[in-house]
Amino acid sequence: MLRPGFTGSPLDRADRLRNDPDAFMTAVSDWRARLLRLDGIDPVLGEDGRLSWGSLAEADEGAELLLLGLIDGRPHFAALDYGMPEGATRSMGIFRTLDLLPPEEASTYAGARSLIDWHLRHRFCAKCGNGDTVIHRAGWGRQCGRCGAEHFPRVDPVVIMLAEHGDKVLVGRQYRYPPGRYSALAGFVEPGESVEEAVARELHEEAGLTVRDVRYVVSQPWPFPSSLMMACMATADEAALTIDTTELEDAFWVDRAGVEAALAGAPGAPFLAPPHYAIAHTLFRWWLEQAA
Amino acid sequence: MLRPGFTGSPLDRADRLRNDPDAFMTAVSDWRARLLRLDGIDPVLGEDGRLSWGSLAEADEGAELLLLGLIDGRPHFAALDYGMPEGATRSMGIFRTLDLLPPEEASTYAGARSLIDWHLRHRFCAKCGNGDTVIHRAGWGRQCGRCGAEHFPRVDPVVIMLAEHGDKVLVGRQYRYPPGRYSALAGFVEPGESVEEAVARELHEEAGLTVRDVRYVVSQPWPFPSSLMMACMATADEAALTIDTTELEDAFWVDRAGVEAALAGAPGAPFLAPPHYAIAHTLFRWWLEQAA
Repeated sequence: MLRPGFTGSPLDRADRLRNDPDAFMTAVSDWRARLLRLDGIDPVLGEDGRLSWGSLAEADEGAELLLLGLIDGRPHFAALDYGMPEGATRSMGIFRTLDLLPPEEASTYAGARSLIDWHLRHRFCAKCGNGDTVIHRAGWGRQCGRCGAEHFPRVDPVVIMLAEHGDKVLVGRQYRYPPGRYSALAGFVEPGESVEEAVARELHEEAGLTVRDVRYVVSQPWPFPSSLMMACMATADEAALTIDTTELEDAFWVDRAGVEAALAGAPGAPFLAPPHYAIAHTLFRWWLEQAA
Repeated sequence: MLRPGFTGSPLDRADRLRNDPDAFMTAVSDWRARLLRLDGIDPVLGEDGRLSWGSLAEADEGAELLLLGLIDGRPHFAALDYGMPEGATRSMGIFRTLDLLPPEEASTYAGARSLIDWHLRHRFCAKCGNGDTVIHRAGWGRQCGRCGAEHFPRVDPVVIMLAEHGDKVLVGRQYRYPPGRYSALAGFVEPGESVEEAVARELHEEAGLTVRDVRYVVSQPWPFPSSLMMACMATADEAALTIDTTELEDAFWVDRAGVEAALAGAPGAPFLAPPHYAIAHTLFRWWLEQAA
């Protein structure tokens, strides 16, 4: 059973409450209601190393409450304040925090962060330009007060994949990665293509590979700002690479021993592996288990 | 080999041309360049029953050219005119047209339709409200002339799934379906959840089922307006249903013979199957083959 990062939140998203303003108000006035503690848009950890929750009284005046869902029947909220920094301004600490956070806690946080960040970047109606869009559906959408258009939080599907050739897989590094880091190749799914087609296109664009037999493995959300990462495998009959150097700094084929060394953080490993909460990490582990 | 609807376009999306204004202009002035013929936002079919293409001279004055990609090295465009009807205003004829169009032609059309429709609904900057956003990346994005924000076409991931209990699968009907039509249950993937979690959540919300072992099967794009449909299976240990009647009019378990009769359009079939270009159709066929 694969357990990717950012999955396993105990939240019941309570869709039934979102379209019921009375139920939403009941949740807001529930004395047991909890508010996610944030530092800007980053999580605040409690002494137990988990997310920290306070009472709704901690929300800043004028903040808007977003209903994340219920845990054991208790309403859990995040507060949106339009003065918050956008998620694009990533703090140095967020990745250290994610190193420590259990996946199910990171999952709850990921949903809150993506939702808040979407609101911060979508206050205006993209259809008519009106600035008076208001939050509706308990925080899970905005509606324009002028043209009536509804807008829903974005989730951007991304394919992330290992091409396989013989007993090796292809790893690549983007320019912005930390020194030594390599990962699976990845790219956004575009309008008009399937997951399988996006995998083949990205491997062709970035590495010059022609692949067959694209297999979906597993998925996870990624809250920077709001991607759905779908991990896949594909088979390449030829190993020759033509690297698109506008996208990738480097790419190479690595064997089982090399991936094992990288995941173990062994000295002399051929590359530095992605962190445990990244789905590329899960995909590498899965591939090693398959090959075993 | 599964062949879902809206897949198999011969277009090379030619990502390398999108960030190169000179290459884009060369493509626009290529005498071999082709323009997708549209009636509003619907496809115009040629006498061969395929998409119809004209020369760029057919574009209305003031229309903006979107580079769909290359076929055999020839640039293929669609023209965006802000006076076009949005895709939400679906014509009566589009579904009849899709009945006739081969999947690879429908795939090319789907990308064009989703892209055009996105531009029509996103002329204003959602971040600052500015109306002077301009097309960039050869049609695959918009940039705000005031705040500089870039906006990219949306693709909304959707899970569509069959819960399996013993030798039966669950079908449901939405209120807006044609009389007798049932299909797989479906819903949007939300920020902060995986494909697997969305499948489990939707089946619980809409039908009251608790499921395990979610398995991804295959995907396709769906251009109304721009979804990525991911077809999955899941196992339900209990068959009791609690239908959310705000979402579904009805749902029931159907056996193999019932699904076969529905796909064959047999008289007396327990339901009317979704059309061949819908991924639910592909999923039903796949399930029958698995069970065979």
